[in-house]
Amino acid sequence: MCGVFGVWGNEEASHLTYLGLHALQHRGQESAGIVATDGETLYSHRRMGRVADVFAAKDLDRLPGASAIGHVRYSTTGGSVLKNAQPFAVELAGASVAIAHNGNLTNTDALRAELEAAGAIFHSTIDTELIVHLLARTPGASMLERVRKVLRRLEGSYSLLIMTPHQLIAARDPHGFRPLVLGRLKNAHVLSSESCALRLVEASLVREVEPGELLVADADGLQSHRLDQDAAVEPRQCVFEHIYFARPDSELFGQGVYDVRKAIGRRLAQEFPVENADVVIPVPDSGVAAALGYAQASGLPYELGLIRSHYAGRTFIEPASSIRNFGVKLKLSPVEAVIRDKVVVVVDDSIVRGTTSRKIVRMLKEAGAREVHMRIACPPTTNPCYYGIDTPNKGELIASSHTTDEIARYLTADSLAYLSIEGLRRSVDGGERRFCDACFTGRYPVPIPGVSGRKSSLAERD
Amino acid sequence: MCGVFGVWGNEEASHLTYLGLHALQHRGQESAGIVATDGETLYSHRRMGRVADVFAAKDLDRLPGASAIGHVRYSTTGGSVLKNAQPFAVELAGASVAIAHNGNLTNTDALRAELEAAGAIFHSTIDTELIVHLLARTPGASMLERVRKVLRRLEGSYSLLIMTPHQLIAARDPHGFRPLVLGRLKNAHVLSSESCALRLVEASLVREVEPGELLVADADGLQSHRLDQDAAVEPRQCVFEHIYFARPDSELFGQGVYDVRKAIGRRLAQEFPVENADVVIPVPDSGVAAALGYAQASGLPYELGLIRSHYAGRTFIEPASSIRNFGVKLKLSPVEAVIRDKVVVVVDDSIVRGTTSRKIVRMLKEAGAREVHMRIACPPTTNPCYYGIDTPNKGELIASSHTTDEIARYLTADSLAYLSIEGLRRSVDGGERRFCDACFTGRYPVPIPGVSGRKSSLAERD
Amino acid sequence: MCGVFGVWGNEEASHLTYLGLHALQHRGQESAGIVATDGETLYSHRRMGRVADVFAAKDLDRLPGASAIGHVRYSTTGGSVLKNAQPFAVELAGASVAIAHNGNLTNTDALRAELEAAGAIFHSTIDTELIVHLLARTPGASMLERVRKVLRRLEGSYSLLIMTPHQLIAARDPHGFRPLVLGRLKNAHVLSSESCALRLVEASLVREVEPGELLVADADGLQSHRLDQDAAVEPRQCVFEHIYFARPDSELFGQGVYDVRKAIGRRLAQEFPVENADVVIPVPDSGVAAALGYAQASGLPYELGLIRSHYAGRTFIEPASSIRNFGVKLKLSPVEAVIRDKVVVVVDDSIVRGTTSRKIVRMLKEAGAREVHMRIACPPTTNPCYYGIDTPNKGELIASSHTTDEIARYLTADSLAYLSIEGLRRSVDGGERRFCDACFTGRYPVPIPGVSGRKSSLAERD
Amino acid sequence: MCGVFGVWGNEEASHLTYLGLHALQHRGQESAGIVATDGETLYSHRRMGRVADVFAAKDLDRLPGASAIGHVRYSTTGGSVLKNAQPFAVELAGASVAIAHNGNLTNTDALRAELEAAGAIFHSTIDTELIVHLLARTPGASMLERVRKVLRRLEGSYSLLIMTPHQLIAARDPHGFRPLVLGRLKNAHVLSSESCALRLVEASLVREVEPGELLVADADGLQSHRLDQDAAVEPRQCVFEHIYFARPDSELFGQGVYDVRKAIGRRLAQEFPVENADVVIPVPDSGVAAALGYAQASGLPYELGLIRSHYAGRTFIEPASSIRNFGVKLKLSPVEAVIRDKVVVVVDDSIVRGTTSRKIVRMLKEAGAREVHMRIACPPTTNPCYYGIDTPNKGELIASSHTTDEIARYLTADSLAYLSIEGLRRSVDGGERRFCDACFTGRYPVPIPGVSGRKSSLAERD
Repeated sequence: MCGVFGVWGNEEASHLTYLGLHALQHRGQESAGIVATDGETLYSHRRMGRVADVFAAKDLDRLPGASAIGHVRYSTTGGSVLKNAQPFAVELAGASVAIAHNGNLTNTDALRAELEAAGAIFHSTIDTELIVHLLARTPGASMLERVRKVLRRLEGSYSLLIMTPHQLIAARDPHGFRPLVLGRLKNAHVLSSESCALRLVEASLVREVEPGELLVADADGLQSHRLDQDAAVEPRQCVFEHIYFARPDSELFGQGVYDVRKAIGRRLAQEFPVENADVVIPVPDSGVAAALGYAQASGLPYELGLIRSHYAGRTFIEPASSIRNFGVKLKLSPVEAVIRDKVVVVVDDSIVRGTTSRKIVRMLKEAGAREVHMRIACPPTTNPCYYGIDTPNKGELIASSHTTDEIARYLTADSLAYLSIEGLRRSVDGGERRFCDACFTGRYPVPIPGVSGRKSSLAERD
Repeated sequence: MCGVFGVWGNEEASHLTYLGLHALQHRGQESAGIVATDGETLYSHRRMGRVADVFAAKDLDRLPGASAIGHVRYSTTGGSVLKNAQPFAVELAGASVAIAHNGNLTNTDALRAELEAAGAIFHSTIDTELIVHLLARTPGASMLERVRKVLRRLEGSYSLLIMTPHQLIAARDPHGFRPLVLGRLKNAHVLSSESCALRLVEASLVREVEPGELLVADADGLQSHRLDQDAAVEPRQCVFEHIYFARPDSELFGQGVYDVRKAIGRRLAQEFPVENADVVIPVPDSGVAAALGYAQASGLPYELGLIRSHYAGRTFIEPASSIRNFGVKLKLSPVEAVIRDKVVVVVDDSIVRGTTSRKIVRMLKEAGAREVHMRIACPPTTNPCYYGIDTPNKGELIASSHTTDEIARYLTADSLAYLSIEGLRRSVDGGERRFCDACFTGRYPVPIPGVSGRKSSLAERD
Repeated sequence: MCGVFGVWGNEEASHLTYLGLHALQHRGQESAGIVATDGETLYSHRRMGRVADVFAAKDLDRLPGASAIGHVRYSTTGGSVLKNAQPFAVELAGASVAIAHNGNLTNTDALRAELEAAGAIFHSTIDTELIVHLLARTPGASMLERVRKVLRRLEGSYSLLIMTPHQLIAARDPHGFRPLVLGRLKNAHVLSSESCALRLVEASLVREVEPGELLVADADGLQSHRLDQDAAVEPRQCVFEHIYFARPDSELFGQGVYDVRKAIGRRLAQEFPVENADVVIPVPDSGVAAALGYAQASGLPYELGLIRSHYAGRTFIEPASSIRNFGVKLKLSPVEAVIRDKVVVVVDDSIVRGTTSRKIVRMLKEAGAREVHMRIACPPTTNPCYYGIDTPNKGELIASSHTTDEIARYLTADSLAYLSIEGLRRSVDGGERRFCDACFTGRYPVPIPGVSGRKSSLAERD
Repeated sequence: MCGVFGVWGNEEASHLTYLGLHALQHRGQESAGIVATDGETLYSHRRMGRVADVFAAKDLDRLPGASAIGHVRYSTTGGSVLKNAQPFAVELAGASVAIAHNGNLTNTDALRAELEAAGAIFHSTIDTELIVHLLARTPGASMLERVRKVLRRLEGSYSLLIMTPHQLIAARDPHGFRPLVLGRLKNAHVLSSESCALRLVEASLVREVEPGELLVADADGLQSHRLDQDAAVEPRQCVFEHIYFARPDSELFGQGVYDVRKAIGRRLAQEFPVENADVVIPVPDSGVAAALGYAQASGLPYELGLIRSHYAGRTFIEPASSIRNFGVKLKLSPVEAVIRDKVVVVVDDSIVRGTTSRKIVRMLKEAGAREVHMRIACPPTTNPCYYGIDTPNKGELIASSHTTDEIARYLTADSLAYLSIEGLRRSVDGGERRFCDACFTGRYPVPIPGVSGRKSSLAERD
């Protein structure tokens, strides 16, 4: 998962983008980058690490101009190297172009094979470079025309920002899997993965970029175009953004994330009440809003039974032998006064492998909980996402091969219940017709080719 | 403020101490250090920064032995240099000794002048070095005797861990301002500023180290001694640890912190209800428990109206001109769905200068709140702390020179109310007789000499 | 200028290459890199900086396999970024390939324009990437065939090492501008820019790679091929390698560098004696051998009148106002006892802009020299090199627009003399027929197109 | 060994000191530091590493004022940590003082024991801290009086710079083991370990600071005082500074170092000629001047048969198995043309353990030398230095337990000869009466107590 942010038409473009990326930091902490332009040259600064560490004041000073795009990238296995950082900036014949991409293409193997056969050389393992190669080989009367031709060849999910010294183009795939919103700050156009970043830079939210829409900002103002790829394509926005990924203070796909999560919690309470429960607690922070909804609908008291540490770092040294499994303990710790001798309903956003949930149940029981009933704010996650959410293989998804009862036993929970798919659809406006829920249903809106057997024979030791 | 942690008698002493410091990270993020001993040599590793950054695996491997003490230090103005990091380790004639100190001495100027006149050379600006100098000049039949003689000369607050290759001594000043607890992990004795760190290393909480107690762990086991400084000294534990500083999952001075904060919130609701209120929200994270207590006592719904960012870093680059005051915005952001058109009760732990509270009120109003009523989980902070909490000068404390009404106007809040001192005392067991509340009352249990005019003429450019 | 080193067939290939690069460090200090292969994967490690700083033990451990190539790069204006570091390693369709290049192509603009028009995307500003792009688009039955086709399209100078998991190919352009030698260490083939690196790894010198030769090392052994580009092409080896660039302990183009320099010094003494001279001193280190030759031929005593500092670093802070021009003083300092009241002959390898020579003359006079006679170990440098030596523009070459007398006055030298072109040719075996001396004569063996006006519009802020 | 440099009375004091330390870099590469004063505060900057790496422009900007002292420190076993860096700056009661020390005290154990018994706490293992402790406990009407009292208690060698905001004091021990010179730059007084650093900052050499002299620079000008410790003390300047340590362009103890080395070489040629020799070569760089003297006296040609690399770094990775002993090879490499089939006289400054000389002889033989005759520019080094030169224990000095013949066999040299002690004394003005030659004769001018058995029980893991 990633986040993108762009500004067209404000002299503090790179500073605003820096702020915007800060507000989108939850969408990716592996690397960050900004490309800015003064109308002539593209200036680029990218590094591994978080936004606050990647940019010093002098770095922003060296990114002049009234337009900029930025990117934060999520850490995924095996590809954590600088050359995969974005925005990706290159010089094509007669043009400089920078691209920031949130999403995941599904026809990369075929496209890459075709390009390599024609002599293209790849330097990274990211989809963005593939888009650049297609751009380089696609002639056209204008950059917009070239971009449109290229996008028609892409399958899968993308919310893209493409910048030249003269234009900023925003594009969203026809299904609109990943979010992208348009804002306004005085005369400037602002684009962001989520609306929370607009608020931080004091821009107002204009509207979402629509699925299949191409927005072009340049000296002539802002114009909207259609990809026209397939008029019959229905929107399939990612419901998991609402469940887990987006920030609760964002408005997403036309709805407030916090509201959706509370609605989910309320429905979960109706579907799966716990009769003798004493208290409802969330797994912080992502379970908080659903737990509040659950507590309010059930009339049970809401308490903060698990404290989340602000300092749970990425690199942590485990003692050799006698003490084990500190991963969850360093992040979460129980408040005994809340839990001891209580029948506890604990609400979490989802279960992936089940290992963390199992540790949480054990932690609550060690802290004295009489019973632990786990309630999950979505249906069982049975299928991997191929459109940008970093889920593991199907084999690692515990719900793909175990019943809810089996999972409950594994977790050592006294009961376990998932929100029904029907309940989820009713918690969001438009439900089935507007959202992708393939991770719960296996119904993929865009077909997924067989898993790629490609193995790179080039290893960067960085 | 600082945190200390120590282990006597476990082969993974430095690893356990590393974990313990991690759990105490909220007590200080400026520097961290561990001194370990194998019974012969003291091994020391100290650095500026957070625990996870200060220690790599190899650093812990180079801290062998079954005993260790550690320290995390809070950033205070002017003194952020490595030489102020702790534990402080030196070689005295015929002995090596390491000291980790949480607290603040009040007679340092007099003691330091006396020592310098006698030829002592100071390398740091920390109280700990003064203790070491006194130790160096105080003869005695044993280290315990020397320590006892030295402690009798100290005034103010201290929770100390003192380690030689042969002993670990824990001491708490007669008033017991700062916390210190004793735990047990198999055969090992564990000491920690807060009990939350015991849980992380899977040690059980034995009891508090008592005010005026000296605990000695060595080959002969664990022995308790009294300072015997003044039998009539009453305990004066810091009530602000309960209000703000300690972690809610700690048990402190015999009470759960989370419980105390909820009791405070309930009492605040009784003392200062808001009749037409729609919702209660906390300033996260320190206001959460009090807000829950307020909501439960008042019957109002509790919501998460302010989101706290996990990524609000220490160094942040402000744009030059057009966008200002991002400090609070980067840390907190409003959830409009919760706030818009609502009469909001916002609960915070305390008000120091008032600048942050003012920004929060403005943020809530910009997000559409109809009214904002601020409720504070303690009385007005009118006096600085000289016993270890890093409060500014009296002149900077807004409540020292303004009435509550004046402050409410400054904050642009529709109403403002502080918990009464009586209400605070009733929220903690023992109240006035056991706690120091000088920051609210000005009644200092240990006299404070005139503010030191001492100015160092030695500037380290590091 | 750069240096290349490669090993085929020794289990310590990357360690040997590390040593080899160390011995070639004088050919480039900007960046260093090694690509190694275990027959399946190419492993790459490249960094800015010197060999000893670029590689730690663990870095070499992560470069396994029996074959490796390495590169050291010289710092040139504007292009000092990591992406210009070599060897350049990419994955083509169905093949991984790494290239290390010493030299400078003269038809890059034309080739690059052609490639970009066909959709190629460039990530660096180095010739090596251009070669890679050509390789990617050039089909062929084998890598050798593809390489041969590509090399036929190149003009200018190159000594190349090209490595795949299965082969190591060495190539030298038809004129053989830059050196490249073949060595042997047990069963392994070793390739190096200079023979001094062979000695360090205890390999024996087999022979030079011939101009226009392609050597292929693989599982079938070592085979020699010809480029067959133009049978009539005559060798034009760079005479300036002998004068200045190569290490005196190298054997180059069939002759010992130290011997050539001494012969030059002897001839210089015959051509331009100084009658009343007291002493001959070199500008260390590059003028040492020629000064010895001069002293021996003239019967004058040789002394070390200028000391060269081992610590003259790259980054040096000049005081603001009162003290200036420390550049040369930090590197060289006079030995007064040798110089005071003496008529001094000072021998240097060459004069480029004249600014350094002027400072040296002034330094000698300030140290008390009665007269300073400068003797230069080559003819006046009147033309820039386009084949890999980093000379400035013609306008900055003092000898391109000034007579020797004018230069002598500028230097404030009592006399100045350059070796004649005839004298230079007689000092090397084969003279005019085998060597390129375009920097002295303007007779360029390969035509140079008009200087490129290309300006990149992409600025990397790294 | 170390170097010191100081300036009193120039607004660019810290910049000049930076330059001076650069010129003294050969005296110590482990750490560097400068303390500057603006008449009120002492500003300090110290780091591990070389001068060019320790100081950035901003660091010098933060060292304001017209006076400064600096120090470069040599790497010695076990004590390479920042806290041993100098100048040592502390705040005593009512005074700030900084000290830079070159030398080695011989009564440290007794003084340290006395101080520790009186309660002094040591933070480093350097003599300088001991001097500071003595200063702190020594009352006096002025800093000069206190310094004089303290120096009278010291035994061994010291060249000291002591700075307060109001004074700069320079002192040299009564024997004057280590050098120290006084220079003048406009109105400023400059002090330096060697005169080569005066030249770099364009100061003129005034004279040596005399053995047993105390120089005080302050607002009243420059005044000379005597230690008056012992009127009968004779100067014993270190002859090894002339042989090896000092830079050849320095004037030391009243004589040019280059001249002394050439005189040594000439005398060596007279004492130990090699009848059938073809060529004389130095071990660069320290053997160059002596080799030139030898060549000139013997009429043999001088050649550069060994090339010294500029890039022989401190950290070098040895290959695991098949290739060994690269230490010398990375630093020196033979020029075969000079050596092959020749009878070679190789001149080096001294032999310590013999391991390096053995490798050099082998290197020359492998490069084809018919015979190798080694000539050493001093007598056999049979005794360790206790006055500041970093020699190993007596047991490691090959000449302490082997005859010259035995050493020659170990080196595999065809002959070996050391300069006689008589020859050495005649090569320097004043000879035996003015110089310390204890390393050759064992006649120590200041008695050395039994080797200390003290072992620190405090280990800094930095």
